[in-house]
Parts: sequence; C-alpha cells; structure tokens
Amino acid sequence: MSFLALLDFSSVLVFALTGALVASRAQLDLVGFAFIACLTAVGGGTVRDVLLGRDPVFWVGQPAYVLICVAAAIFVFFTAHLVESRYRWLLWLDCFALSIAVAAGTGVALSFGQPGVIVVLMGVATGCLGGLMRDVVVGEIPLVLKQGELYATAALAGSGAAMIALSVGIPTRPALLIAAATCGILRAGSLIFGWSLPVYKSRPPKV
Amino acid sequence: MSFLALLDFSSVLVFALTGALVASRAQLDLVGFAFIACLTAVGGGTVRDVLLGRDPVFWVGQPAYVLICVAAAIFVFFTAHLVESRYRWLLWLDCFALSIAVAAGTGVALSFGQPGVIVVLMGVATGCLGGLMRDVVVGEIPLVLKQGELYATAALAGSGAAMIALSVGIPTRPALLIAAATCGILRAGSLIFGWSLPVYKSRPPKV
Amino acid sequence: MSFLALLDFSSVLVFALTGALVASRAQLDLVGFAFIACLTAVGGGTVRDVLLGRDPVFWVGQPAYVLICVAAAIFVFFTAHLVESRYRWLLWLDCFALSIAVAAGTGVALSFGQPGVIVVLMGVATGCLGGLMRDVVVGEIPLVLKQGELYATAALAGSGAAMIALSVGIPTRPALLIAAATCGILRAGSLIFGWSLPVYKSRPPKV
Repeated sequence: MSFLALLDFSSVLVFALTGALVASRAQLDLVGFAFIACLTAVGGGTVRDVLLGRDPVFWVGQPAYVLICVAAAIFVFFTAHLVESRYRWLLWLDCFALSIAVAAGTGVALSFGQPGVIVVLMGVATGCLGGLMRDVVVGEIPLVLKQGELYATAALAGSGAAMIALSVGIPTRPALLIAAATCGILRAGSLIFGWSLPVYKSRPPKV
Repeated sequence: MSFLALLDFSSVLVFALTGALVASRAQLDLVGFAFIACLTAVGGGTVRDVLLGRDPVFWVGQPAYVLICVAAAIFVFFTAHLVESRYRWLLWLDCFALSIAVAAGTGVALSFGQPGVIVVLMGVATGCLGGLMRDVVVGEIPLVLKQGELYATAALAGSGAAMIALSVGIPTRPALLIAAATCGILRAGSLIFGWSLPVYKSRPPKV
Repeated sequence: MSFLALLDFSSVLVFALTGALVASRAQLDLVGFAFIACLTAVGGGTVRDVLLGRDPVFWVGQPAYVLICVAAAIFVFFTAHLVESRYRWLLWLDCFALSIAVAAGTGVALSFGQPGVIVVLMGVATGCLGGLMRDVVVGEIPLVLKQGELYATAALAGSGAAMIALSVGIPTRPALLIAAATCGILRAGSLIFGWSLPVYKSRPPKV
C-alpha cells in the first residue's frame, strides 16, 4: 500500500468513528451508523478527488475503504455506551482524523502536480469537508464554525507547513508528517489550552 | 427508452413530487417549487453519476428529466391544497421514490461493472441523497435520520437483495424489481407497522 | 482575460464578500472568514463545472480566484464593523453576485453547446448554489427559500432572458449582460418594492 493510501485509510477509519459517534448521539440504528460513518469518512476525500478529476474516486476504486467504515460503525454501535463522554471522544478523534486528512489531501494534490494554492486548499478541503457534511446533516453546529477554536486555521497551517517544508528541500513523506503534526498540535492546543485567533467583533473594545 | 432510463424517470418524477410538497410546506412560489423539486429529484442520481464518472450526468444528457420536475412542481403547486395530509403524502411518495431510485442506482452501477460493495452503495446513495438534500436545505430533520424507522436500512436491503438475486442467476431486470420491492416493503412496513431495527441507547435497559 | 472569465471573477469577488459578511455575523476568525468566503464564491460555479464535465474546474485551473476570495475575506474582517447594517450589505451584494453568476453560468453552459433547458438550469445553479451552501453551512434560512421574495425566480428570468435574446439574434455578450440586468432588476425590485410571485397557501383565501 502506498504512503498516500495509508494516510487516506487512517483518516477514513478515524473519521468513520466520529461519524458513528455522532450517529450514537442521534440514536440511530446500525445502518444509520454506517451511513453517517461513510458520509463523514469519505466526504472530504471525495470532493477532493472530484475537483482534481481523479478517476475513479479513491473509495470507488478500492471498496475496502467502505468496509472499514462499516466495521468502525459496528464497533462504535456496540461499545459507545462504555465511554464516559462521547462528545470528548468525538472532539479528539475528529482532531486526529482532521490532521491525517489534511496530510492526505495535501499529498494527493501534490501528486497531481497542482500549484501551491490549490495544494493547500485541497488539504483544507479534505480535512474539513467530511466533518462539515456530518455536522450539517445531523443539524449540529459544524466544528469548523465553532467560535474561538482553531479548526480551519489548524488545517491551513498544516498544509501550509507542508509547502514550506517542501520548499526548503524536505522530501514529501516527512513534509506530510509535518503537515499532520502541525495541524494536530494546533487543534489540540485549541482544545486543551484554548488557543485561538482573534475573532471578529462587530464593536471592537475601546482601548 | 431503456429499462434503466425508465427507472430513473419514475424516481425523478416521484421525488420531484416530494420536493414540491416540501416546498408547499415552506410556502414558496412556483419557481421555488421547481427549484426544490429539481434538487430532490436529480440530487441522488447526480452524485451517483459524478462518482461513477458517467459523462454526461443523466439529466444533462437528457433534459426531459428537468421538464418532468417542472411539470411535477406545477401540478403540486395547484393541487396540494386538495389533499388532507400533505405530510402523509410526502412520506408515501418518498417511500415509493426511494424504492425505485435504489433500483435505478443499483442498475446503473451494475452497468458500469462495479464490484458488489460499490453497487450496493450506489443504490443506497441514489435512493437517500436526493431526499437528504431536500430536507437539509429546507431545515427539516432528514427522513434518513428519523429514529426508529427503516430508511437507509430499507435502501441497503433493497440493493443487497438485488445482489443476492443476481448471484443465484436471476437476470438483471427482475433483480432490480426485487430491489425496489424489498426496499418498498421494508419502508412501508416501517411506516405502517413501526418495523424497526434496535437503535443505539446510551444506557441499555436493565433486564 | 476572456469575457466569461471576467464574469466569473466578478461574481467570485462579490460572493466572497457576502460569505465573509456571513462569517462576521457568526464571529469567526480570519481563516474562518476565508473558508466561508471560498465556499460561497466558488460553490455554484464548481457544481456547474463538475456537471458539465469541465476539466479542470475553473478555480483549480486558475488559483487567482482563490486569492481573490482570501483578499475579500481579509478586507471584510477589518472593515465590516464600519458599516451600519451588515445584513443590508449582505442582501445587496448577494443580489449583485447572483446576477453576475447567473450570466456566468449561462455563458459557460452556452460555450459547451448545451441545449436550452440545461443552459437555463446552469445559470440558475451557478447563481443560487453558492449562496445556498453558505446559508446551509452557517445554519441560516437560505435566501433562496425566503417566502415572498424573488430569488430563484430572478435567476430563472435572467438566464431565460439570455436565451430569448440569443434566439432573436442578439450576440452572446450583450445577451449575457441582459441576463445579469434582468436578474438584478427583479431581485432588486423584490428587495425594494416587495415584488413577488404568489406563494403557495394551503388554504386559499375566500373571495
């Protein structure tokens, strides 16, 4: 299995777990779990592949991706009641999946010889869109829109870090690992320490 | 007209009626009816065709599909006030459209020589995604997420039944009819008799 | 730059401003502004290009579109507090972007030699879908679903007007300007004077 496929597999697996956790919060049945798991797990990469004209889309050419989603859904269906805070698990698994998916999206766009702006954007899109679809479909506020948290910013920093690493001569694989690490550290720092960028305020505080 | 085109036409027509009914509940004007009718009716099949790399997408190559949606929207605009419970009509038309769309999606994926997992998934996607877009756009809880109802499950059983039928030597057309019947019976049983799969409960009842 | 690219650029710029304004109402950070700006600005045209099988999608082949979105996001982030009613600005910029995007979508579909029905639909889709994604993602009622306002209707009238203009021998460029003007006038009339089509009423008033 290629390094890029490994990244895609990992992000699909972990995003599928987050999708199934969201399904557990919506009290769906087992097939509903699998449905949301698939949507979340392959959503971002599917948009990326369609935009890049990749034919076939990664999971259509390799159905094992779908089986992984189903396995993740079954696993969560029978074990989610064992964990204390499903929402905390959701946040942290999503953080992990986001980081890997950003690296995967960046890597696929690089392998298509896209210019830097598009590579960075595909990293962000692959990372953010699956979770966005998950949250929009179940009617929750998308994580990417949570005020005062780094999410799209972490994704952007991750794929941006890969571009910088490549430009100073670091090879592709370590550059993609740097992307995942950068994204993961920023997002984790946001969850633990409340790291954030200044948000827009309609009336700026008087100084 | 081919058998597959006939399935697509039927599901488009009936999904368009459901889209127009949803538009009537949102009190839109005639063009709004047509907009939601088109989105609902061609949404699932469009995703299927884009994922399979079908070029052109079914309704782009055959604009009559769009005219059918418009006709359905006009029909509902002028007659919806005549029926007593628009929501009941919506549920039953959606059940019918779901069943046919599952068969259509399964059939198209088969004709592309896709492996079984992808065929089943395309059946589910074609059936569920149009209605999902309709419900997300108007801000209603998607039917596919309704607790304790068979929806994605009915779709999955339908396309799965077609695969089983094919594997025991039944030809494609009757296999697709079996898909539609299986899906329709399960969904109808869920609406009438409350058939359902066990849903996830965070704290399983003590026995 | 071709005339069609100019239309796409203008609609991308103005839609990006609307996306950033919506982001300001959701109090996101700068990257969140850019994320929503990009989604809004390229959403409609991306769907159009994928449906028409245009490869690459317009902004993938020309990353300057994305940079424009980012610039628009930065501009709004630092200036939005200066305007009195951000919602009024949002409505009017959206009106402007809608009109140009309808013309752009119509023009691209024409250049692909599509039949009239598809051309009209691509105009409507290019105009309406970016704003629809923006509104669905942030959880606001989509402008296209606002009761008693011309929105999809204005878009349809615009692309329809282009088809009529072409059929009476007017060349493409003026026909597309007619499309933008028709759409813009109807939408503006709806915002200022309350122009509307009759909406569906479940119980029509007794006369």
